[in-house]
Amino acid sequence: MTRTDLTREADAPARRADGDIRVAVSTVIFTLRRPRGDERAAVVLPLVRRTRDPFEGQWALPGGWLDATEGLDAAASRTLAETTGLSPAYLEQLYAFGAVDRSPSRVVSIVYWALVREDETRTEPQENVDWFDAESLPDLAFDHNAIVDYALWRLRNKVGYSRIAHGLLPDVFTLAELREVYESILGRRLDPANFRRQVESSDTLIPTDDFRTGSHRPARLYRYDREVELADRGPLDIRH
Amino acid sequence: MTRTDLTREADAPARRADGDIRVAVSTVIFTLRRPRGDERAAVVLPLVRRTRDPFEGQWALPGGWLDATEGLDAAASRTLAETTGLSPAYLEQLYAFGAVDRSPSRVVSIVYWALVREDETRTEPQENVDWFDAESLPDLAFDHNAIVDYALWRLRNKVGYSRIAHGLLPDVFTLAELREVYESILGRRLDPANFRRQVESSDTLIPTDDFRTGSHRPARLYRYDREVELADRGPLDIRH
Repeated sequence: MTRTDLTREADAPARRADGDIRVAVSTVIFTLRRPRGDERAAVVLPLVRRTRDPFEGQWALPGGWLDATEGLDAAASRTLAETTGLSPAYLEQLYAFGAVDRSPSRVVSIVYWALVREDETRTEPQENVDWFDAESLPDLAFDHNAIVDYALWRLRNKVGYSRIAHGLLPDVFTLAELREVYESILGRRLDPANFRRQVESSDTLIPTDDFRTGSHRPARLYRYDREVELADRGPLDIRH
Repeated sequence: MTRTDLTREADAPARRADGDIRVAVSTVIFTLRRPRGDERAAVVLPLVRRTRDPFEGQWALPGGWLDATEGLDAAASRTLAETTGLSPAYLEQLYAFGAVDRSPSRVVSIVYWALVREDETRTEPQENVDWFDAESLPDLAFDHNAIVDYALWRLRNKVGYSRIAHGLLPDVFTLAELREVYESILGRRLDPANFRRQVESSDTLIPTDDFRTGSHRPARLYRYDREVELADRGPLDIRH
């Protein structure tokens, strides 16, 4: 540092306490994929291989810097599309991670998440992007392992009190298909008869007149009651 | 700006996209207060009168700038204590608000919230601090009216699936006292018999051998099952 620099520093107004803090956004995109031959689908998410320091060569959540002229939601959508080509209809804010030591420089990361059906994840292959089983991740950059763990925890909590599994299903589905989604998310078997009773008493499904036929006996197709919102955002409008 | 300043700017590396974004924390502290003569307690929160621009003279949520050397939780606790003298045992992150136009300069605010019992709100009187009914607020600074509305919505949702009302009650309480907390939060009367059935079937309360006596017939005192956490934070540790 030259003498001039030192003088300028001394002359400058008191440094803002937040002067060295930067804001980033990251996104956790969950979907279910059934590995070939495996009976249970796995929760998977896309990661991006870092091409520069810090953590060059390691995998990280899709994301980037918040631009001064865009809102948080817009930044999450933009950086997700730029890095992975994915454009889910809806991203929900998950949590702000801001531990002092989570990055070599001070970065507060606003993390978004979404559940998408597998057919929504088909994009042109992207360089340095791959999908990983959420349960067996490599060592990720920054605190991204902890962020994915938190997102999984929220996912498992949320299936209990909301209709979040809908985000992973086509418009119509059988009760067995719905049960398999819950089983994949919760990581355990559910009793088919108990599951049917609970779902039917929840009044969130509407039976259709159609049946799925195939190798098994015909199974009635259901759809979610559209009067019930998939993810109730409350009074938040889209500007946040 | 002098010519030297301009030269320095041109010589500087490309301006970071986030260069003009600052990070603040704010806190919504809810408690219940029974206005004199009123039968139902109101949800109230502390606000701080701003003594400088922007929004000088208007009321705002307690808060301040995130310091580069402290985590988000620590910043929320520190700024809450500095402005109001309050030190709740636990603050929960509510949401990050980052709309471009929410402040004259670009500020992302990480908002925390807590529910506290009224006896925890007794501090030395603080200059420029007062408590307000959450349902009838004046025009607050920034987007703080929208933030309080969102916190109220979360509060009302949360009483349905968690033991959050515990934060507003003493260690032991009658079912009538518990019902009154729910009625105050939800803003409507609940049928006492239905309420008792629902609470008893939820397995979250432990009946004690003690009774509240007074002007009414004796009422059994209950306590929450301590095995069940008041607010399940999941895998987040305290560093975030």
